[in-house]
Amino acid sequence: MEKPTLPKGTRDFGPAQMAKRQFIFDNIRKVFQKYGFQPLETPAMENLTTLTGKYGDEGDTLLFRITDSGEIAKKIKDFASQTRRSRVREIGKSLTKTLYEVAKQILIQKPFINTDDYILIGNEIKDLYASGQLNLPNEDINLVVNFLLNEDPSYILFRNSLLQDYFKLIKENLSSDNLLNGAASHPYFTLLLSELISNFTFESMSNKDLIPLINEKGLRYDLTVPFARYVVMNRHEITFPFKRYQIQPVWRADRPQKGRYREFYQCDADVVGTDSLLCEADIVLMIQEVFGALGILDYTIKINHRAILSGLAELTGSQNESSLFVAIDKLDKIGEEKVKEELRSRGFEDKGIDAVFSILNFKGTTEEKINFLTTQFAQSEKGKKGLADLQLVLQLLENYSSTGSTNANAHVEFDISLARGLSYYTGCIFEVKINNVAIGSVSGGGRYDNLTGVFGLPDVSGVGISFGVDRLYDAMEELKAFPEEARISSKVMIAHFDEATFHYSLGVARQLRSQGIATEVYPDQAKLKKQLDYANKKMIPFVLVIGSEEQKSGLLTLKDMQKGEQQQLAIEAIAATLKNN
Amino acid sequence: MEKPTLPKGTRDFGPAQMAKRQFIFDNIRKVFQKYGFQPLETPAMENLTTLTGKYGDEGDTLLFRITDSGEIAKKIKDFASQTRRSRVREIGKSLTKTLYEVAKQILIQKPFINTDDYILIGNEIKDLYASGQLNLPNEDINLVVNFLLNEDPSYILFRNSLLQDYFKLIKENLSSDNLLNGAASHPYFTLLLSELISNFTFESMSNKDLIPLINEKGLRYDLTVPFARYVVMNRHEITFPFKRYQIQPVWRADRPQKGRYREFYQCDADVVGTDSLLCEADIVLMIQEVFGALGILDYTIKINHRAILSGLAELTGSQNESSLFVAIDKLDKIGEEKVKEELRSRGFEDKGIDAVFSILNFKGTTEEKINFLTTQFAQSEKGKKGLADLQLVLQLLENYSSTGSTNANAHVEFDISLARGLSYYTGCIFEVKINNVAIGSVSGGGRYDNLTGVFGLPDVSGVGISFGVDRLYDAMEELKAFPEEARISSKVMIAHFDEATFHYSLGVARQLRSQGIATEVYPDQAKLKKQLDYANKKMIPFVLVIGSEEQKSGLLTLKDMQKGEQQQLAIEAIAATLKNN
Repeated sequence: MEKPTLPKGTRDFGPAQMAKRQFIFDNIRKVFQKYGFQPLETPAMENLTTLTGKYGDEGDTLLFRITDSGEIAKKIKDFASQTRRSRVREIGKSLTKTLYEVAKQILIQKPFINTDDYILIGNEIKDLYASGQLNLPNEDINLVVNFLLNEDPSYILFRNSLLQDYFKLIKENLSSDNLLNGAASHPYFTLLLSELISNFTFESMSNKDLIPLINEKGLRYDLTVPFARYVVMNRHEITFPFKRYQIQPVWRADRPQKGRYREFYQCDADVVGTDSLLCEADIVLMIQEVFGALGILDYTIKINHRAILSGLAELTGSQNESSLFVAIDKLDKIGEEKVKEELRSRGFEDKGIDAVFSILNFKGTTEEKINFLTTQFAQSEKGKKGLADLQLVLQLLENYSSTGSTNANAHVEFDISLARGLSYYTGCIFEVKINNVAIGSVSGGGRYDNLTGVFGLPDVSGVGISFGVDRLYDAMEELKAFPEEARISSKVMIAHFDEATFHYSLGVARQLRSQGIATEVYPDQAKLKKQLDYANKKMIPFVLVIGSEEQKSGLLTLKDMQKGEQQQLAIEAIAATLKNN
Repeated sequence: MEKPTLPKGTRDFGPAQMAKRQFIFDNIRKVFQKYGFQPLETPAMENLTTLTGKYGDEGDTLLFRITDSGEIAKKIKDFASQTRRSRVREIGKSLTKTLYEVAKQILIQKPFINTDDYILIGNEIKDLYASGQLNLPNEDINLVVNFLLNEDPSYILFRNSLLQDYFKLIKENLSSDNLLNGAASHPYFTLLLSELISNFTFESMSNKDLIPLINEKGLRYDLTVPFARYVVMNRHEITFPFKRYQIQPVWRADRPQKGRYREFYQCDADVVGTDSLLCEADIVLMIQEVFGALGILDYTIKINHRAILSGLAELTGSQNESSLFVAIDKLDKIGEEKVKEELRSRGFEDKGIDAVFSILNFKGTTEEKINFLTTQFAQSEKGKKGLADLQLVLQLLENYSSTGSTNANAHVEFDISLARGLSYYTGCIFEVKINNVAIGSVSGGGRYDNLTGVFGLPDVSGVGISFGVDRLYDAMEELKAFPEEARISSKVMIAHFDEATFHYSLGVARQLRSQGIATEVYPDQAKLKKQLDYANKKMIPFVLVIGSEEQKSGLLTLKDMQKGEQQQLAIEAIAATLKNN
């Protein structure tokens, strides 16, 4: 029997991992709800028309597609038959001519060639072509040679006898000027052609042709496009501004590697239907609350604005804004010199590049950066708009800080070099990095102005934030940030010695459960050691041992598995102890 | 622009539905955890080798399959080419002979037929066959006629000239006994054959051939098979007995209809690695706790045992146990007479049928039913085993009842006619019905003895229960059982009149949030009416109105949206009010 395996790039989450993941999810969900976001779930599968064309060409190839349950064989056959017909019409003439030309040239060059031997003819054609003696394009030669040397037995049978006649015919009529017309209408030609065509029918079926034929649905690639689709479909029922959060898995047929999976969760919160910068300020606060709740203390919330980047682009005098963004995005990875090289190769002038880097390299507080940029952007409308937005976001955080013990600007850093990959951002952009942990960004987002436009609802501004659970998980493991409570197990297991104490223990279990204490009774009759082992392995913190003495006295032995201590207590005291621990 | 739609049989869950669904999920999860079950999640996609053959033939056709991202076109081409070759070998001879026989018979009957006109020949063949003058099977005739009358232009071109020559050849040699051999090796034959074959290549591609070619993965169909796969893959790390719960969506390509979806959630809890009947008792308690938590009061937990059904089967003297189970399962739907009819048609004898129905129709308490069956099963080992198990489960519930205010046997009904569809059950079986609600069973489960056997790990006994969230949801809507708390929205929205009060409100929001109160500030400058409308539509229960007077005095207006009352309070009092409401 074959051992079962998991599809590559996918994972099971066992109890210990699940508990930690639920800890992350629960905290993010709590924060989202505290800020007025409401939950949404969309189906795992979407129509391909909803998904394709939204993630670029590469994204399209990474979609997982569902094979239609309908008659896909019929669709493929119909497609093949159609292809066959159009092929006959389209390339029939040129093929016929090519074959005739090749045969004619061969027979002029080698009038005494043995036309029985098609392998010889094939090799002859190759040789003549290689020596420049055949005046046909390489692809035509390949076509004919491949046909001649094809090893399919059904072709050999057919070709063998046919070619003899065919070459003989051409040989005999070599001097006649009208041969081409005559030969082309000769049944041999039609037959040859037909045979070749049936080859082409298969040859011409590519993944690109087939995949749309047999798939109408795909698995969602992110939560943003389904959200946009939902908003458009429900726009008459939705109360705008619409604040939704969504915590669901997404699927990408990426090549799996360390930290990159084919199924992974995204945790998104978005507001659409308002351009109020309060949403940006709330995103900063939510990030702070999430990281606080997760016990991650040392992190940076980088913030920038697409219009500020546009302002930078204006300073270079180049129209090629997106090339500049792409290059700046690499600064962290490849360094200043390589970025400059790339910009030069993209046609940016040295003067412009210097202007950009004098800004990127400016050191100072957020306030100093803003003051510096205000001068630089004196002539840039876009730059000014970006700065004004950013200042207002910071101002709103300032207002938030009027109460509360911590500064609402804490962890926030204005990073002029932050660019973010996705093309749809138009306003503020965010990225969160955990300091001193070698993991990329664990959260990111920004404002977009036309996400629903592609579904027919233009001019809906929105802003969102997304948390990457897998990276947060890994970072928290590295930081040992998971608390005790990120564990899901019974609070107490009841061990027993015989049937009488087993039966007695059920009443005890029921009392504990009635007080909300997660309790399990070891289900089998087994030695105490085995029962304790089970509790240990499942990380159950307390064991209640019930022997006949305990049953009689009502004073049960409560064992603290971590401390190794035990005490004899009545059931009420036990319940109280368990609830307080 | 095309309007976006959802794939049929799938649903979005907006905020109001999500809150109610989360209420159900949270309560089920809490109960599972309280009984020592730990969470597991498996990937949405599994290898098809894991999924197929587990749900019967019908189940296999209902699997959603993922199209391979690899070279599926190549696979199809390779398959088609292979099919072509084997077809040439297999049916070449018989086809050649058929074609020859048809032509010969035609030409003997109609020596002066115009061989230029293939349509005429085709119709001639049909006529001759209809009048019984052609000695060939119908399928052979069809083959030839279809070929002759095929309307594909590429064939017409080819056939037209070929057939003239071909029929002429046969006509001229009609007297020669050796014609068949000669004709069969003539290139015309080979060509005809080849052409026919290229048709067959497509004809023979069926969904059944294609689907395994282009799919290696599918979406999970239930949570049980992935669970069994997980247990087998992790058997060396798992502590048995292993108690896991799993709450995830499953996918079935069923025809969508009211209450039946293509994506739906299952909530399963299973214990594997013990045959202790305590697990069955715990399942009963968990059902009671779940329904209690959901506020569903009037429901019945039907319980039976597969061995009791086997005992019934023994009484009929028939070996056909599963036919009896299937028939009994329909009792509710089609009634006693029809079930009897079905049993008779399956070869059950009247005496046996009467014996079964004297038991099925026995009225009485669970205790009376057990006493009655004990007599009936005096000779049935299986029947006795089933009764003993059932009695022990009831005894364990009795023991549980020794404490606590409600009887642990509450809602439990021993139903001898309960059969359950799935074939893998071997012990106790359960089904829960909500009384007076026209919805099928909302929960079901049972014991199985060899679920992991199919993956190479035999003899692992397990028992599980599954809750159907969609039906529970519908039933709770009908019963109006969802409480106020099954709603997720901000507790309070802050409305403001101008920029100054808007900015001031942020500090207020922060104070409320710091006390865990879900708070949102209306993000835009808008008329109070619009702000209140937003709060109303989002079902936010309180609105805090802040005007310049309020800002000055620090006494803010708290509006209870449901009661329509409002009062002026300081922030601390507001926080207290919100926390208590």
